[in-house]
Amino acid sequence: MSLRVFHDGALVPGELVTLAAPEHHYLARVRRASAGDVVELLDGRAHAARATIATLDARRAVLRVGELSSIPEPPPLELWLALCDVDACLAAITMACELGVTAITWVRSAHAQARPPAPARVQRVVRAAMRQCGRPRPPEISGPVALEPLLADAAPAGGVIACQRHVQQSAAGPRVARLLVGPEGGFTDDEVQRCLSHGMHACSLGPWTLRAPTAVAAGLAWLRAQP
Amino acid sequence: MSLRVFHDGALVPGELVTLAAPEHHYLARVRRASAGDVVELLDGRAHAARATIATLDARRAVLRVGELSSIPEPPPLELWLALCDVDACLAAITMACELGVTAITWVRSAHAQARPPAPARVQRVVRAAMRQCGRPRPPEISGPVALEPLLADAAPAGGVIACQRHVQQSAAGPRVARLLVGPEGGFTDDEVQRCLSHGMHACSLGPWTLRAPTAVAAGLAWLRAQP
Repeated sequence: MSLRVFHDGALVPGELVTLAAPEHHYLARVRRASAGDVVELLDGRAHAARATIATLDARRAVLRVGELSSIPEPPPLELWLALCDVDACLAAITMACELGVTAITWVRSAHAQARPPAPARVQRVVRAAMRQCGRPRPPEISGPVALEPLLADAAPAGGVIACQRHVQQSAAGPRVARLLVGPEGGFTDDEVQRCLSHGMHACSLGPWTLRAPTAVAAGLAWLRAQP
Repeated sequence: MSLRVFHDGALVPGELVTLAAPEHHYLARVRRASAGDVVELLDGRAHAARATIATLDARRAVLRVGELSSIPEPPPLELWLALCDVDACLAAITMACELGVTAITWVRSAHAQARPPAPARVQRVVRAAMRQCGRPRPPEISGPVALEPLLADAAPAGGVIACQRHVQQSAAGPRVARLLVGPEGGFTDDEVQRCLSHGMHACSLGPWTLRAPTAVAAGLAWLRAQP
């Protein structure tokens, strides 16, 4: 079922819900759906349900909520993402969503940008990714936090650092599924040393300098492939 | 050294080369370089050299070629990419370049698009990726080829299929470093069966439907992480 729409409210089987304007537009104009079509309805927080389009005209879209989907709780998978330029941040978030990241923390570091993308823009990108990949629960997004206190507060220590310029093979596997990706200018040698001294490992993603979105996707897959 | 320019000709230490107009523009206007700056000069095929800017004005950029870089031959890493929409193809090529793919073959399949991006556009994207990631040798790009003869002709058989909708854990590791990624609509069950019967394995990249660029980056990293 690849037709997915959002409704920011409770999903109660048997009840009718009226979609907000952007979702109405998506269903009627972008996807050209029709009354009777079955869609997946997401509440944007954690839940999903099958739903049938009861009414779809130029003014409104009304759906009847069907059976709630059973959504397994995903295993924790954290991304610490140093602040990159806005487009790179948004592309990285999209990929992190698709690859099952459950929590994203914006990180300040020596070469990081000053601020993350606007929350409204982040939410649009997350929802687009959820709509595309079928994931009902968005990642939690927090920060920005400076690298040093983040490392100090994180428990248990561990994780993997995929900094684009510091390519080293990790000897031991990571103890927690946590990926740290650097900004465009990479981490400083000092920052890398602090990460390593806090129990993080470096993972090898090849000899070339990766952009942040590529490092995010490749680093997450690398983590997943660890025994 | 992150300032890289292309010169489509022989790189002979000690000689002067005059850059073509787009490279002159990049050096003078985009990067605002100056005479005396040291850059990395790529011939766009396989070679790289240090070079010093001898003259840089509004009309031309002349560089003196220095020491040739020693470029290790990369291990073979093949990507078979089913034809997706143009933007997805180009994003996938960029990531494949960064992650060290040595050969890309466009693949026709049941749900694939009709044709690949124009060769000139592909070359621009490949060069941009090489400039960004520092890789001196571009991947070889061929096809499009239909999936069935490609499977039949490939020797040795093996590889990994990362089709966005057919997520299965491979029992055995891949014998060759070859990744097959499907089009937006995924592969048909029949296509997947043919791949598996030709010795390919399916790799697990998570429960959600991946876009092609994400599948490419994650699949390549997954391959790299195999023992």
